[in-house]
Amino acid sequence: MFVSDCLGVNGAGHLTIGGCDTLDLAAQYGTPLYVVDETQLRQNCRAYVRSLAHFYGGNGLALFASKAFCCKEVIRIMAQEGMGLEVCSGGELVTALSVGFPVERIYFHGNNKTPAELEMAVRHDVGHVVADNLEELRRLDAEAVRQGKRVKILLRVKPGIDAHTHNFIRTGQIDSKFGFALETGEAMAAAKAAAASANLELCGVHCHIGSQIFDVSPFELAAEVMFGFMAQIKAECGVELRELDLGGGFGVQYDQSDTPRPYAEYMEAVAKTLAAKAEEHGLAIPFILLEPGRSIPASAGITLYTVGAVKEIPGVRRYVLTDGGMNDNPRYILYGAHYTVLNAGRAGEEAGETYTIAGRCCETGDLIQEYTKVQPTQTGDVLAVLATGAYNYSMSLNYNRIPRPPVVMVREGEARVIIKAETFEDICRNDM
Amino acid sequence: MFVSDCLGVNGAGHLTIGGCDTLDLAAQYGTPLYVVDETQLRQNCRAYVRSLAHFYGGNGLALFASKAFCCKEVIRIMAQEGMGLEVCSGGELVTALSVGFPVERIYFHGNNKTPAELEMAVRHDVGHVVADNLEELRRLDAEAVRQGKRVKILLRVKPGIDAHTHNFIRTGQIDSKFGFALETGEAMAAAKAAAASANLELCGVHCHIGSQIFDVSPFELAAEVMFGFMAQIKAECGVELRELDLGGGFGVQYDQSDTPRPYAEYMEAVAKTLAAKAEEHGLAIPFILLEPGRSIPASAGITLYTVGAVKEIPGVRRYVLTDGGMNDNPRYILYGAHYTVLNAGRAGEEAGETYTIAGRCCETGDLIQEYTKVQPTQTGDVLAVLATGAYNYSMSLNYNRIPRPPVVMVREGEARVIIKAETFEDICRNDM
Repeated sequence: MFVSDCLGVNGAGHLTIGGCDTLDLAAQYGTPLYVVDETQLRQNCRAYVRSLAHFYGGNGLALFASKAFCCKEVIRIMAQEGMGLEVCSGGELVTALSVGFPVERIYFHGNNKTPAELEMAVRHDVGHVVADNLEELRRLDAEAVRQGKRVKILLRVKPGIDAHTHNFIRTGQIDSKFGFALETGEAMAAAKAAAASANLELCGVHCHIGSQIFDVSPFELAAEVMFGFMAQIKAECGVELRELDLGGGFGVQYDQSDTPRPYAEYMEAVAKTLAAKAEEHGLAIPFILLEPGRSIPASAGITLYTVGAVKEIPGVRRYVLTDGGMNDNPRYILYGAHYTVLNAGRAGEEAGETYTIAGRCCETGDLIQEYTKVQPTQTGDVLAVLATGAYNYSMSLNYNRIPRPPVVMVREGEARVIIKAETFEDICRNDM
Repeated sequence: MFVSDCLGVNGAGHLTIGGCDTLDLAAQYGTPLYVVDETQLRQNCRAYVRSLAHFYGGNGLALFASKAFCCKEVIRIMAQEGMGLEVCSGGELVTALSVGFPVERIYFHGNNKTPAELEMAVRHDVGHVVADNLEELRRLDAEAVRQGKRVKILLRVKPGIDAHTHNFIRTGQIDSKFGFALETGEAMAAAKAAAASANLELCGVHCHIGSQIFDVSPFELAAEVMFGFMAQIKAECGVELRELDLGGGFGVQYDQSDTPRPYAEYMEAVAKTLAAKAEEHGLAIPFILLEPGRSIPASAGITLYTVGAVKEIPGVRRYVLTDGGMNDNPRYILYGAHYTVLNAGRAGEEAGETYTIAGRCCETGDLIQEYTKVQPTQTGDVLAVLATGAYNYSMSLNYNRIPRPPVVMVREGEARVIIKAETFEDICRNDM
């Protein structure tokens, strides 16, 4: 019925998440409120762990792309579930270190790591640094020398496949700020520089071909191209790389109109491609890294709002004014992202009314969803926006100096705060 | 030469702001760095105060729309310059109160003020509340009764003029989440309800027809429509309104391609319209409120970045990778906003190279400006993005858990921090 298994409707007709009545959650914690179901979050991790066991005999690691939802409790759960972690800033690294996430399972990404971040990564013995460009490679090498350490690295490579949601193009030169281009020889130059360095250990290569991709074939092609590059590195540098990071980008269902392929289909197809290419090149199948981001927390999260007023503009549209908006969910104003909106108190009824769901910021574009079907709604009702577990908290802002809402985690009928509500004191703390 | 008077080039060829060398500022405070020139900020306020004196004999008040840049020091300066203040959230109100901004000069805006905000506004005797909808009017009335106070209000009215940058349309029903519609009778119903309330004092009406408007005629028409509505209120409710808030939206120059009309032209035209309408309706010219937001801080601010690397994609484009991006300047990813970018160390030279200026977030759209002309640039150089004083800090985010940069205010060669840099501790403070 819903996009997430953790959601249901109870006898009172109220939406539930993780066995908790969403109206009770709204009453207890106030709104806006982010809610995340722990069971769903853990299930989403386990799907990747199981899949790696099934298709690669466990010879791999799923790295949670922490940018999708980075906070201490989520990172603790990732550690418990045997996930690796992708960080791409000092702040994400500090969060992971603060909860004792195993450093050997951390991969440090980013197109422009600052000198301070490279210093931190080396000092804390982060498992791997994913090098993005030659300048960074030089700085990382110098930092490794300075600290007297040998740093494991991957190279971020643009395989020349640019995939969008429902199609992809093959291009020599992906127009992206990330990574080394294959066709210009830049990637090979980087591999040679890394292989020649005494303080860098070139362990593997990484690619990422897009986001919300609903097709398998671009991933197969990427695996083929990357394996070919690994064979070329062995031939030209004499280094057999042990790790292949295939990135993320596999599509996630946000609403009923999205129809992602079963994940196993993708895994099976890519595993077959890799097996064939390994045989062809006479190489072992490398340790496989996957980088699920969105798909881990997205379906586990919802956001609750209270309706302040319903404003009808005759012949135009009806606005439902909520107490949240672009601040807690900037994905609509940024990307026009689709979401399912429910009246949480009437979740079992037909969504027969058409509304535009607006926020409370002083900004015309401050909308959560336009012309969307919802159950009849009035002042005081609680709305639930589904599948908001990824990027909503992590991209949230304080426009109009509105403090960020708290995040509550639910599990089998119990709820606990995992991120406290920001206060006005937090907002003004750094003002002189 | 530049979009702002506070900018210059010194003997070393470096960009200066408020008499400070931007390379010195970058070295002293680090990058990314927001810099605001106090003199320019104050001059921008004084232009409004002078204009009100000239065209309305001082019978008016310019309200700084604090959403454009809200922090304690900016609000202190607004108080000193005799400005009023528009707030639209508890956080903006708390900021203003914390520096002793005169409450009688505060106007509380917003399309969906929460019950807690209405309580605060009444408790602190905020000068005026700008009521947005009937539900809110009822709640405000009840809150005034509860606290035993009489609350001054304006009504936010949609005058049926929808102005965009270079044109406008006249429509009965503006499609906006804000305010009362005139043509449906909703605005008059609100006026009657307010006039009938013992605890609400209906002082005036407000309209806001758009942002970055580069033409005078939509403002003239808005003034005419609003004055007509005031006359109608007098006729039907027996209340002569003393205040007319004409909102904001007058265009600001972001780069050399923008050509805003002189502000005096707008003021003169609107003042003439109002004088004519006052005579026609037999009414006094009301107390005029203006709501400059963007135009107060925009030209006073710049942002400085350090270049990590320059990445060339042959035949496609060259990316300059900076240590900032969408986190400190979300206006490009949100609106494709135009900015002038300079190499701060070569500011006197010709901007002969074409670059795309990228940030460091793990997001493909994390760009500051695309295909823009800049002086030749390499790793280690400092870039300055001009006219970033409005909305950049106030809309900033912590994506990738990157702390917000500090804000430094400069004045005649001296610099001081007005907002401290966020720390990793700030970022993790509310995590459990």
